[in-house]
Amino acid sequence: MGIQDEQPQRDGDLLVALAQIDTCVGDLDGNADIIMDYSHKAAKQGAALVVFPEMSLTGYPIEDLAFRASFRRAAWSRADRLARELDEQGLGHLHVIVGTVGTDADQDRPRNRLVVLHQGRVEAGYDKHFLPNYGVFDEYRIFTPGDRTVVLEVQGHRIGLAICEDIWQEGDPISDLAGRDIDLLVTINGSPFEEGKGHVRYELAARRAKQVGAPLLYLNQVGGQDDLVFDGGSFVVDQDGTLLERSPRFVQDLSTWTLPARGERPMPSKSCMAEEMPGDEEVYRACVLGLQDYMAKNHFTGVCLGLSGGIDSALVATMAADACGGEHVRGISMPSRYSSEGSRDDAADLAQRLGVRYVVQAIGPEFNAFQGQLHLEGVAEENLQARIRGVIVMAYANAEGLLALATGNKSELACGYSTIYGDAVGGYAPIKDLLKTRVWQLARWRNAQAQARGEREPIPVNSIVKPPSAELRQGQKDSDSLPDYSLLDKVLEAYIERAHGRADLLADGFDPDTVDTVMRLVDRAEWKRRQYPLGPKVTSLAFGRDRRLPVTNAFRE
Amino acid sequence: MGIQDEQPQRDGDLLVALAQIDTCVGDLDGNADIIMDYSHKAAKQGAALVVFPEMSLTGYPIEDLAFRASFRRAAWSRADRLARELDEQGLGHLHVIVGTVGTDADQDRPRNRLVVLHQGRVEAGYDKHFLPNYGVFDEYRIFTPGDRTVVLEVQGHRIGLAICEDIWQEGDPISDLAGRDIDLLVTINGSPFEEGKGHVRYELAARRAKQVGAPLLYLNQVGGQDDLVFDGGSFVVDQDGTLLERSPRFVQDLSTWTLPARGERPMPSKSCMAEEMPGDEEVYRACVLGLQDYMAKNHFTGVCLGLSGGIDSALVATMAADACGGEHVRGISMPSRYSSEGSRDDAADLAQRLGVRYVVQAIGPEFNAFQGQLHLEGVAEENLQARIRGVIVMAYANAEGLLALATGNKSELACGYSTIYGDAVGGYAPIKDLLKTRVWQLARWRNAQAQARGEREPIPVNSIVKPPSAELRQGQKDSDSLPDYSLLDKVLEAYIERAHGRADLLADGFDPDTVDTVMRLVDRAEWKRRQYPLGPKVTSLAFGRDRRLPVTNAFRE
Repeated sequence: MGIQDEQPQRDGDLLVALAQIDTCVGDLDGNADIIMDYSHKAAKQGAALVVFPEMSLTGYPIEDLAFRASFRRAAWSRADRLARELDEQGLGHLHVIVGTVGTDADQDRPRNRLVVLHQGRVEAGYDKHFLPNYGVFDEYRIFTPGDRTVVLEVQGHRIGLAICEDIWQEGDPISDLAGRDIDLLVTINGSPFEEGKGHVRYELAARRAKQVGAPLLYLNQVGGQDDLVFDGGSFVVDQDGTLLERSPRFVQDLSTWTLPARGERPMPSKSCMAEEMPGDEEVYRACVLGLQDYMAKNHFTGVCLGLSGGIDSALVATMAADACGGEHVRGISMPSRYSSEGSRDDAADLAQRLGVRYVVQAIGPEFNAFQGQLHLEGVAEENLQARIRGVIVMAYANAEGLLALATGNKSELACGYSTIYGDAVGGYAPIKDLLKTRVWQLARWRNAQAQARGEREPIPVNSIVKPPSAELRQGQKDSDSLPDYSLLDKVLEAYIERAHGRADLLADGFDPDTVDTVMRLVDRAEWKRRQYPLGPKVTSLAFGRDRRLPVTNAFRE
Repeated sequence: MGIQDEQPQRDGDLLVALAQIDTCVGDLDGNADIIMDYSHKAAKQGAALVVFPEMSLTGYPIEDLAFRASFRRAAWSRADRLARELDEQGLGHLHVIVGTVGTDADQDRPRNRLVVLHQGRVEAGYDKHFLPNYGVFDEYRIFTPGDRTVVLEVQGHRIGLAICEDIWQEGDPISDLAGRDIDLLVTINGSPFEEGKGHVRYELAARRAKQVGAPLLYLNQVGGQDDLVFDGGSFVVDQDGTLLERSPRFVQDLSTWTLPARGERPMPSKSCMAEEMPGDEEVYRACVLGLQDYMAKNHFTGVCLGLSGGIDSALVATMAADACGGEHVRGISMPSRYSSEGSRDDAADLAQRLGVRYVVQAIGPEFNAFQGQLHLEGVAEENLQARIRGVIVMAYANAEGLLALATGNKSELACGYSTIYGDAVGGYAPIKDLLKTRVWQLARWRNAQAQARGEREPIPVNSIVKPPSAELRQGQKDSDSLPDYSLLDKVLEAYIERAHGRADLLADGFDPDTVDTVMRLVDRAEWKRRQYPLGPKVTSLAFGRDRRLPVTNAFRE
């Protein structure tokens, strides 16, 4: 930062601050405090305009909280008070753009609103036109759309306003703003992380900048909110596609950029140009930030999880240690008669590398007590072992006030290779959206990163290279029940993420046996998961749209 | 039925059959078979027009299944084939109205469509205009709205067509049909059960009949689909508000009614006028039908549940015995050191009355095995007992292929008086939407019904009259932790169903202490349930809209 050094202010220049903050849904006072803090920072750097994310005062997404009249009233009066407080603290000269919840004229239906706080008052309001209603978004269900375009005047600069989806759809407000001689288009966003989405955002924004004939400032929120992660990465792009500013990702940030006098060519910000991030790093950091914010915003200071010695629990434990420090992680080894010596060693080795609080609870006594009554066999006996472990993990969670983590990955969950109320126990499932091959890849990336920093590798190599096994019966291997993961994951990606049917999968080049096996596994697992819809519903990421299908559903491709 | 006896056909009369059927989502062949079967029955009675429910060919609601192109293609070709089969089986003269999924012109976005099968072809198509996007409905997210009004001509009668929400909103298509000189308005529905909703439907339908100047035929589906129950209760109402026909509720049915020649006054159907149903009976039957269809459509032939001797498990076991017969119910008594002798006796007594397969599994050995390692105290120790029982219930479910039932009621779930992975274990929760006072009321109603039929009362009186207790520690009573249920339920109803805030609740006349206690319990339970969103998400009924709130949500009223 330190914008004064690099871009001396000239007459007609407008210094704009990009306040990429991490808010908490419903925490009006906490969010207002962050907005106040960042406004002070922006003013110190000489900014005249400060831009905060979509619904930054309320947090985002607020879902059905929007329907509570008491919440809307509280948000509205908090916006008024924030405007007064800014003025009282000497910041009345700033134009502060924040997002909040509004209502339509009859005070009945909520709206997704942008307001401008200035000179102690809430001055201008713009309501989001396009309300996304797909994937993770349900906004058309919740809000009524706006119908007015707004141009804000700041020190002679004409600034067009938009909210998130408004620039993703053709038509108003962008087409209207294109004819209104604006100098800058500001869009405030709550755009969830998806791998590789950064480029899509730039390209779209460049097209819109060209359409309105002015640079576009894209301000995104950062942080985890339930099963979503927002990656930040705010930026300014010129109408010829030149990147003029890029904020860092996965962290709160205040960057600045200068909008020049009318008719002058905008210059890139030299100080605020974050580097691009490799795919493995962005995914890993999204997982860690999601867990970190879920803990912080729900007042958890520590987590617990079962450590089997396998790669899934090893990666989750490493993410957890990165999120809250190894000393706040409780790792529980729960060996049975089927657990190999190697697995126990790998679990202990991992715990020692990460500095987690480690405990061994062999499940023999519990297993014998249940079996003395129940005499279970086959899958029921396998599930019993997993469920005893689930009870122990929850006992630690209850007794020590910890958040229990489920360690399942997307490949095994998709194929039903998991026990409900067993290994599926947990309040948060950090790698639920990662296919197994990606789990290995991230483990290798994290070890390489440690090496590059001259640190000890957190994950024992043996956990990465050994053949995966649930160890619920003698000599069991994942490959007894599932196709090889390198093949399985490709089929899963096509079948689940791209919704390819059987004919499409064959056209993709997969052999019929594999296709039928995977489809049968997934359909059956989905059906069972829907029957017992109690599995880890909280996911960490929005990599792809999950299928929302009815439980009772006899359709097969 | 036997319409010929009561309403001799005259020239110009059109006999209309109301085919109130129970379909299964995604089961195109099964649903087509039911449609064929009921079309034959209708033809035998002399009907010329047969009306089936909304999306009867695909089942309803299909949710994201609508997005699978392969499903849309299969539904479309099944409609074509059904039209041909009707013709081949001598039913080509019938006009058969069914609901299915269509697409817009570019074959891309799905539509909620009504089609008319006639003379071997799919003749006319009408697409739903108003797509509900509130409460349990997400249709605007899934479908594109239709934009054409359709009038069907059958033997000189002009029949306007509508689908469900179309008559609940002002504007087209009803206002358009009002000017098109129709003789009958047919609306096909998938309208979920809510207590007392029947009267709302009649009143609205009568208003619409008056608006279009013709009788309105309201055809509703029947049956359970996941967490919804559809109650049937189809009817015909005249423009002056006279009820001309009323089909029974909670059962499949074929009734008929005669649309007279143009200009003649329609007469009530004498044979098809079902009686109104008291509130307790409709709620009880909704619960049983929901469970019955959930089992049937997911291929379960039996259920298992823990029997504590308390009222919740007693009512659920009784509903289950009514749904599938006592011999298909596995009741498991799992006493601990804190279980009273009375509770054990009540559980055994209930099992004997219902004829359920009863087994006793004392949890002492498992409790001692866990405590030998974990030494838990307080709530963690209470939860441990509930979780051991959860493991045992799931062991029976796995070993015997049964559907596990969770027995929690709405009052205790709302207040968090329940253990996740413990008593909350189960794939279906039949009384999750019933407040505790309603549980007692339904138990009394069911016993009185048995008495009136000269049968033995299914529920031991002691389970109804004794003070409720979780029996997880010595001398524990629900009243130690919760306000009296008669008061608690009133506050819950206002706070949850009517979304009253603190000020509203005080204005309702509740005292501040109670209001604060209940709000604290509910907010905390909701927060914990959202942290561990693995509780029984499958509910049986749509009595009221559940709050869909974010997990991370610091807002307090």
